[in-house]
Amino acid sequence: MSADQLLAKLRSTLGEKAVVTDPDVLDANRNDEATFCAAGVPLVLVRPGTTAEVQEVVRAAGEYGVPIVTQGARSGLSGGANAIDGCILLSTARMNRVLEISVEDQVAVVQPGVVNADLSRAVLGQGLFYPPDPSSWEMSTVGGNIATNAGGLCCVKYGVTGDFVRGLEVVLASGEVVRTGRRSVKGVAGYDLTQLIVGSEGTLGIVTEATLALRPAPEAALTAAATFLSVEEGVAAAAAVMASGLRPSLLEFLDGPTARAIQNYRDMGLPENVGSLLMAQSDRGPRAAEDVAAIAEICTAHGAAEVAVASDAEESAMLLEARRLVHYALEPLGTTLIDDVAVPRSKLVALLTGITEIGTKYDVLICCPGHIGDGNMHPTVVFDRSDPAAEARALEAFGAVMELGLALGGTITGEHGIGKLKRQWLAQELGPVGLRLQRDVKAAFDPQSLLNPDKLFL
Amino acid sequence: MSADQLLAKLRSTLGEKAVVTDPDVLDANRNDEATFCAAGVPLVLVRPGTTAEVQEVVRAAGEYGVPIVTQGARSGLSGGANAIDGCILLSTARMNRVLEISVEDQVAVVQPGVVNADLSRAVLGQGLFYPPDPSSWEMSTVGGNIATNAGGLCCVKYGVTGDFVRGLEVVLASGEVVRTGRRSVKGVAGYDLTQLIVGSEGTLGIVTEATLALRPAPEAALTAAATFLSVEEGVAAAAAVMASGLRPSLLEFLDGPTARAIQNYRDMGLPENVGSLLMAQSDRGPRAAEDVAAIAEICTAHGAAEVAVASDAEESAMLLEARRLVHYALEPLGTTLIDDVAVPRSKLVALLTGITEIGTKYDVLICCPGHIGDGNMHPTVVFDRSDPAAEARALEAFGAVMELGLALGGTITGEHGIGKLKRQWLAQELGPVGLRLQRDVKAAFDPQSLLNPDKLFL
Repeated sequence: MSADQLLAKLRSTLGEKAVVTDPDVLDANRNDEATFCAAGVPLVLVRPGTTAEVQEVVRAAGEYGVPIVTQGARSGLSGGANAIDGCILLSTARMNRVLEISVEDQVAVVQPGVVNADLSRAVLGQGLFYPPDPSSWEMSTVGGNIATNAGGLCCVKYGVTGDFVRGLEVVLASGEVVRTGRRSVKGVAGYDLTQLIVGSEGTLGIVTEATLALRPAPEAALTAAATFLSVEEGVAAAAAVMASGLRPSLLEFLDGPTARAIQNYRDMGLPENVGSLLMAQSDRGPRAAEDVAAIAEICTAHGAAEVAVASDAEESAMLLEARRLVHYALEPLGTTLIDDVAVPRSKLVALLTGITEIGTKYDVLICCPGHIGDGNMHPTVVFDRSDPAAEARALEAFGAVMELGLALGGTITGEHGIGKLKRQWLAQELGPVGLRLQRDVKAAFDPQSLLNPDKLFL
Repeated sequence: MSADQLLAKLRSTLGEKAVVTDPDVLDANRNDEATFCAAGVPLVLVRPGTTAEVQEVVRAAGEYGVPIVTQGARSGLSGGANAIDGCILLSTARMNRVLEISVEDQVAVVQPGVVNADLSRAVLGQGLFYPPDPSSWEMSTVGGNIATNAGGLCCVKYGVTGDFVRGLEVVLASGEVVRTGRRSVKGVAGYDLTQLIVGSEGTLGIVTEATLALRPAPEAALTAAATFLSVEEGVAAAAAVMASGLRPSLLEFLDGPTARAIQNYRDMGLPENVGSLLMAQSDRGPRAAEDVAAIAEICTAHGAAEVAVASDAEESAMLLEARRLVHYALEPLGTTLIDDVAVPRSKLVALLTGITEIGTKYDVLICCPGHIGDGNMHPTVVFDRSDPAAEARALEAFGAVMELGLALGGTITGEHGIGKLKRQWLAQELGPVGLRLQRDVKAAFDPQSLLNPDKLFL
């Protein structure tokens, strides 16, 4: 039987320990963190330790026509790492070395399984800074961040993962290895396949090494926080901060329902009638105090009910506490379904108003925290999973939020990706010509459709 | 005869005035600014005014199997806009409108034929800033800048053209229109075809509209300049500036031969034994004076022979004068062949030393100005075109510089592109697997090979 032959081949190439077929282990590795996202039953989990071993796995998969799903920490939110029936799960966990940190070139060369936080701490030890900071940074891997082009809190100043990826080593569906991009700051030699592979969710190739741009480490950030009695005032203040040229290193928003959930979870002194909450940071060292004072002034000028400015790191952390508590505050309220729409900033009020209407229409609670500086919001539908009717309404509301984002000239995903969860809406966002073009690109890279074939496209 | 039928069809679709077959006009439009780059004899030059007209041209070209070469201002330096025998030259000159400037969303929506400087001035009028500033900015078009992913002086702080392209409208080889990307700051819905098309030199599609990111306008920049007696000291000072976290908005370098050519052209008070010259700017408004003082200190600490710091815009312009004069100072010395290698900054001394050796070996003058903050240098071979032996040696030196850049872990082109000029070295940089993958992408977009088919690949 060909599955047995494939397993034997994998064992002989990778060694027994790197080839796992224990059903309990396979079951524990079927899913990422996406809610409501079916996963298949994998044939095997492999843990290659080198690029050459990844090539062997891909060649074997090609020979037997078995799909490969590449997994990092499985912290994704769209099912991009979910298993396919009979697939090979390829974990990059063992390829977790920081191969080089160059202070002079301000680059790091890493394997895909390096945890974001481990890299961040390693480069900080040399006075350097790797900005991409998804909330999952303590567990998610750089390879996973690249696969989803992960964002985070500091994108508003520094950009997303892709902005820091200079070059990649990739194992293609053919089993061949290709190096894309460069180590130098600039480079335009041929098509930019690096940025094509960034965000491709394991469907075009398997990243086995990445050359990442670093920056000089900034100094500790200071924080300002402001509460507003309306959504409009908070949004207007955020727009004014972005128009000011101040370049905050963080600009986060919580809507009223989110702020109230946090206040119910822990007393933060937030008023019951809070309409929105804004938090901003500056990391410009000696200038940070000036910056946060200027941001506080902007908030006051836009009608803030209360404004607080931190004078040191400890106070800064306290002011950010509300943001950090979102996840914990929503958890006791029910199951969450986290959306990820991004709209032009001029459409934020319309987005937030529309989300309230959707909540009313479908009779669900929708809390809306978000990276407001980038217009990237995370409307979170909270519902009781034991009530099938509530679950059905929640799913409808989830879709309605994406359709609202599209109608406002936005996108269905700012940083979480399509995975398996959002395939139908991707088709809607791209339209038939765009979708066909994307499929043609997929076919050019992976004609046999071996690499994560049930993702992105329906 | 099919050419006549094609011309008739184009005339009936676009109108007589938009279809030019006058041999003198065609001849005047065959080339871009690349030296030593053959161009064919075009069949016709068309000047469509709308996306729909571009579609008609592409469909007609497909029907008759005639290649299309899209042209902006033909200011490119790699022959990317050079005609192919019997081709349609498609000029975007008439599609030159700024369609929208949104202060709130910090975006501009433009047609491809807009001149960079016109866009820059239009957005500045609204307090906004479009950073990409190739030297050709007073003549080059945004469409051409997108086609080559053009850089410029301020990339060292702000990045290249692609960093400001959010979304595109593109006419595909099939004649269909696709919209890629987004208007929002972030977005990861499907493959990033926007960045794939940026830098693709008219080979994947014809850009008919672009949504560009803007920033709040910075204040006027201040300049510091320093001369060093060696290359090593100037390079070390530049590295120290980049490591300092100061974020200069410009960091330019001239090597000794370039500085001497300028001094011979106009007395700038540069010593005969100048080894290198460094110019830096800061545009951080009230902080700029502090920044340039700090940069001046770094230069002094790294052995600068002389350091000058401007206290206002006029002095700043004076200190940058040497950079501006490079082109004029080299022109009387002979024909120039401008290279565009980019290397990791740690390899800059090796690059500059190697270039001197190449100059000696091939008995040609090589002047090396460059965007040192990005490691992107423009070694310029200067020679007497009336001497065939000198010309042959110059061409060999030109190639040797690229091979040196590759050997140092760099790229053959930081911002000028491949066009027709560097096709053989692209193959060398990418290697066989990378090259095949790039060709597969081309085929996925343009199976009939209608769009600029003799560019990028040999």
